[in-house]
Amino acid sequence: MFKKILIANRGEIALRVIRTCKEMGIKTVAVYSTADRESLHVRFADEAVCIGPAPSNQSYLKIPNIISAAEITNADAIHPGYGFLAENAKFSKICQEHNIKFIGASEEQINKMGDKATAKETMKKAGVPTIPGSEGLLDSIEEAKELAAEMGYPVMLKATAGGGGKGMRAVWAEDEIEKAYESAKQEAGAAFGNDGLYMEKLIEEPRHIEIQVVGDQKGKACHLSERDCSVQRRHQKLTEETPSPFMTDELREKMGEAAVKAAEYIKYEGAGTVEFLVDKDRNFYFMEMNTRIQVEHPITEQVIDYDLIREQILVAAGVAISGKNYFPKLHSIECRINAEDPYNDFRPSPGKITNLHAPGGHGVRIDTHVYSGYIIPPNYDSMIAKLITTAQTREEAINKMKRALDEFIIEGVKTTIPFHRQLMEHPDYISGNYTTKFMEDFVMDEKYKDEA
Amino acid sequence: MFKKILIANRGEIALRVIRTCKEMGIKTVAVYSTADRESLHVRFADEAVCIGPAPSNQSYLKIPNIISAAEITNADAIHPGYGFLAENAKFSKICQEHNIKFIGASEEQINKMGDKATAKETMKKAGVPTIPGSEGLLDSIEEAKELAAEMGYPVMLKATAGGGGKGMRAVWAEDEIEKAYESAKQEAGAAFGNDGLYMEKLIEEPRHIEIQVVGDQKGKACHLSERDCSVQRRHQKLTEETPSPFMTDELREKMGEAAVKAAEYIKYEGAGTVEFLVDKDRNFYFMEMNTRIQVEHPITEQVIDYDLIREQILVAAGVAISGKNYFPKLHSIECRINAEDPYNDFRPSPGKITNLHAPGGHGVRIDTHVYSGYIIPPNYDSMIAKLITTAQTREEAINKMKRALDEFIIEGVKTTIPFHRQLMEHPDYISGNYTTKFMEDFVMDEKYKDEA
Repeated sequence: MFKKILIANRGEIALRVIRTCKEMGIKTVAVYSTADRESLHVRFADEAVCIGPAPSNQSYLKIPNIISAAEITNADAIHPGYGFLAENAKFSKICQEHNIKFIGASEEQINKMGDKATAKETMKKAGVPTIPGSEGLLDSIEEAKELAAEMGYPVMLKATAGGGGKGMRAVWAEDEIEKAYESAKQEAGAAFGNDGLYMEKLIEEPRHIEIQVVGDQKGKACHLSERDCSVQRRHQKLTEETPSPFMTDELREKMGEAAVKAAEYIKYEGAGTVEFLVDKDRNFYFMEMNTRIQVEHPITEQVIDYDLIREQILVAAGVAISGKNYFPKLHSIECRINAEDPYNDFRPSPGKITNLHAPGGHGVRIDTHVYSGYIIPPNYDSMIAKLITTAQTREEAINKMKRALDEFIIEGVKTTIPFHRQLMEHPDYISGNYTTKFMEDFVMDEKYKDEA
Repeated sequence: MFKKILIANRGEIALRVIRTCKEMGIKTVAVYSTADRESLHVRFADEAVCIGPAPSNQSYLKIPNIISAAEITNADAIHPGYGFLAENAKFSKICQEHNIKFIGASEEQINKMGDKATAKETMKKAGVPTIPGSEGLLDSIEEAKELAAEMGYPVMLKATAGGGGKGMRAVWAEDEIEKAYESAKQEAGAAFGNDGLYMEKLIEEPRHIEIQVVGDQKGKACHLSERDCSVQRRHQKLTEETPSPFMTDELREKMGEAAVKAAEYIKYEGAGTVEFLVDKDRNFYFMEMNTRIQVEHPITEQVIDYDLIREQILVAAGVAISGKNYFPKLHSIECRINAEDPYNDFRPSPGKITNLHAPGGHGVRIDTHVYSGYIIPPNYDSMIAKLITTAQTREEAINKMKRALDEFIIEGVKTTIPFHRQLMEHPDYISGNYTTKFMEDFVMDEKYKDEA
C-alpha cells in the first residue's frame, strides 16, 4: 500500500481524498496556491507545499511544480481529484515516468476517451450504443433523406465546423428535410466558410444518466448503478440523484452492462463514469466517459455503503475487485452549493464567508472545505459545498433536503441555496419528470430570496 | 397524523425531533427557558414559547407551563425527548387528560418500568432473565450459603439500606462467605442502623448491552438489535457502538427475543430500550427498561437505515409495525462531546463557544444544537454534540472517528474530544475487550491535550 499520497487539487475534493487517506493510515501531502493558504486541505494534510500563485496555470496546472512537490516529500502516489490535471494524459504519463503512481487512468486510456470522435469510435467497436448518424459528411439531400429514413425522424443536421447553434437544424419529418438541409448549408457556409453537414439522430427529451464504474489492473470492471444529472444549466450540473426517477430495473441492467463493457474494452483502471443520453423511450446512447472521480460521487457512496476514494486507492495499489455490481438500497440527492447569485444569472460571488452554520442530523452529509471567516478566492470554480441527503425513499430525501437547506446558513456571499430550495418544490422535479432542458424555462421566485 | 408537535425539551434532542417533524410536514413548537433564548431549537421550530427561567424545575420540568404552551399553540402532541419529563408518569397522564398525545409510554407502562424492584418482578413474570438473588432479606448465614451454592459463586452481599458501596461484599467462594456476611452485616448496622442483607449473583466483567425496541398500539413489538454502552464513567455513558464487539448472532437472537418479550408483556408503545448486563460467559440479565428515546439512538439508525423519531411519531399516531426485526448492516460509533475538562475530572466547562468547526464527509453524522458564538448555559447537562461515524467494519468506523475528532474544532470551552481521541487508540477499546469497569483505570494522556 502507498505510504504517502500527494493530492494535486484544492477545495472539497482535496479534503475528501485526505480524509480517506487518513482513515486508511496513509500520509498526505497537500499542494496549494498562494490564494489557498488558509484552506482546510492545507490544514488537515500531514504536509503542505506551496506550488505557485493563484492562477491555475501557474500552480494547480503546473506539472513540474507538482512533480517537484511529490519528489521533495517522497510521495509515492498522486491523486488528481477532478478538474485541473485529472484527465491530462501527459500528466498521467509524467507521473509514471517519475515512478509515482497516478491514481487514475493511464495515458492511453485517457487518450482513448478524451477525444469525443475517438471515444465514439472506440465505444462502437466495444458494442456500446452510440448516437446513430452519418459516417462523415453528407454528400447530397438524397443521402440525407435516405439516412434519415433509415434512422427514423427526428434527426439533427449539424455543420461540421459548427458551434453556438449555427448551421444546426432539427428535422422532424421528411417533408422538412430539404428546406432544412439547404438553409443549414447556407448558414454554415456563411458563418464558417465551410458548408459541410453531418447528421445525427435527435434525442428527444434527453436525460443525462451516468453509470459509475470501477476497473482493476487485471482488466475486470464492475458498475455501481446510475446517477441522474439531468438538472443542468449550460452543461453545468446543479443537482444529482440516485436512483434516477426515470430508471427501471431492466434499463439499469442494460446500461450497467454497457458501461462495464465500455470499461473492460479499454481495460479501464480506477473509478470512472460512463455518461449516457437516454431518450423518452429509454433508449440510451454513449455520450462520453469521464476518466476520474466525479463531483457527484457521494450519492453513489450513500446508497451502496461504499467509499469510492478508498476503492480508487486500493485499485491503484493493485488490489483486484470481485466484479460484483452494486445496486442502490436507498435514495440520495446532492445539491451543489455554489457561491453564485441565482437571482443574477448565477453570477459568481466570491468573497469572505462571514458566518457559516451547516445542517446536520439523520441522513445529512456535507463535503466542504470552507468555514466561518474563509475567503473564497475568485480564481477557481465557485462550488463551496456539497449537501447530500439520503433516505429510504425519494420523497423523504427531498423533504430532508428541504429542511437541510433551510438550516444552512452562509453569510457574506450569495449562494445557490435559494435555487435548490425552489427546485425541491418544483412540480417537475418532485414528479421526477425532468430532462436536460429543465433549466431553460426556470425562473427564480423572489420568495426564496431571503434564504440567499 | 399530528398537525403540530410541541417538543418539551431543549438542546440537540429538541432539534433532532424538529428535524424529523419538518421532514414529515408536521409543524413544531419549541419551548425554552430564558437561558436558551438563542438555542437552535428555538430558531428552527415554527413557533417558540418561553416557559420560564433557567432552572429546570421552573421551566423544562414545570408541567403546567408546558401544557399551557401546548394549549396556546394548539399542539396535538408532545414529544418529551429524553431526560426532564420523558419518563414522568404523571406528565404522560396529564397530557392524556388534556387530549394531547404524549409521544412515549403511558402512565401505566412508565410506572411498571420506573421502579427497579417492580420492573424486575414484571420481567420475571414475562420470562426475561433477571439477576438471580434472594427473595427479600437473608435470615441467616446458612440461608446465604445454601442460596450461593444454588446460584453459584461469585455472589454479592448487599445491605438493603445500602449506598456508596457500604455494607457490600463480593464473595468468590464458600470459604469466604461467613466472614463476608458478618462484616457486611456489622458495617451495614453501623452505617445505616439497619443490618438487613440480601444477595445477588455477582456479574463478572459485565458489559452494558441494550436492545432497542419499538412497540405499536396493537401490542406488537420488534427489536432493532443492540448497542454496547459499556464505556461509562460513574454510570454516565461516554461512547456507544453497534454492533457490540462482544455480540454473537446467537446471543443477539436470544437478547432480541427477550427484549421483544419484555415489551410485548407490558404492551409497550413507542421506542424503548431494554438494558441488560452481560457476563463474560454471555449470560444476560435484565437491568432496566428506558421508556423513551435514548441519547445513543443514532448509531442504530445508521446501521439499519431507520429514523427512530419518525417511527415514534408514526406509532404514536396509531400506525402498526410489521413486527420484523432489524439487524445491523454496518458498524457505527457515537462519541458524546461534552463541555467538560477530561484533564480535570471531567469538570463541566460551560461558557461561550468562540469558534466551532465540525467535521464532515463520508460516514460522518453530527447532531448538535450549538454553533460559533453559542453560550453554553451552566444549568443543564454538558453534552453539546454527538459525533457519529459509520463504516463497513468496526476498524474503519474507529479510523473514521479518529479523523473526524481531529477535524473537530471547538474553541472557548474544554471538551471531551481529547478523551475520545485517546479512547480510539486504547488497546482494550480497539480489541473490543472492555467492560463497564473500563474507565476505573483510565488516565488521560497529556499528548492529546492540544486537542482540547
